[in-house]
Amino acid sequence: MSLTDRTGLTKSDIETGDRLAPKFDADGLLPAVTTDADTGEVLMVAYMNAEALEKTLETGEAHYWSRSRGELWHKGATSGQVQIVKELRIDCDQDAVVLRVRPQGDGGCCHVGFRTCFFRKADKDGTLTTDQERL
Amino acid sequence: MSLTDRTGLTKSDIETGDRLAPKFDADGLLPAVTTDADTGEVLMVAYMNAEALEKTLETGEAHYWSRSRGELWHKGATSGQVQIVKELRIDCDQDAVVLRVRPQGDGGCCHVGFRTCFFRKADKDGTLTTDQERL
Repeated sequence: MSLTDRTGLTKSDIETGDRLAPKFDADGLLPAVTTDADTGEVLMVAYMNAEALEKTLETGEAHYWSRSRGELWHKGATSGQVQIVKELRIDCDQDAVVLRVRPQGDGGCCHVGFRTCFFRKADKDGTLTTDQERL
Repeated sequence: MSLTDRTGLTKSDIETGDRLAPKFDADGLLPAVTTDADTGEVLMVAYMNAEALEKTLETGEAHYWSRSRGELWHKGATSGQVQIVKELRIDCDQDAVVLRVRPQGDGGCCHVGFRTCFFRKADKDGTLTTDQERL
């Protein structure tokens, strides 16, 4: 068990302390931002519950909570796109994490076939432009 | 108005189309991951409602929805830590955005006094280590 119960912790304990005491939302989730450990690029945003966060720390491979399937999601278990976690970081109020990962398999992470889920940029008028290549 | 109503759009329109048609959650929000446009580093994770997203596109400065204050939040309006948006990207299912920004003022973004909100990394056992300097 690597997570600390926030009950009884002060604001200072949470914001600058040395214990991982994450704040999950009403659904028991927090957002996880997954970045490429080498390039820093944001690959995807997903969600973790306590179990997913603990499994990620224990195994060194990214686990999320699939909101659509309602189950623990070991990323890459079927696609081969396992994410080896080089570093896990948490923010000041401990309600979001950043994973720095090395994607395995074909190096992708997005079900549409791109290397990242953020393959489109938005112009001021709401036009989207795809500026990445499919894998 | 730069946002497109998702009603009537197909999965393909949303996932690979050229219209910004974001999916907001039950609270009318989506997560925004803010990164440094030059280094790629993740600075913060906040939330946007439709108004915040439109204001961000229109003005070129990051606007969020403050969940704690329950109001539109023009980042830096009081702190000077305005974020000039160089690029806004959206993911495949259009329920998360990435901003690439140039932070103004003292170059920080975190209320605790660090350049990024993710100034601590977590070890396997849940120990947090601060590895950034305060501004």
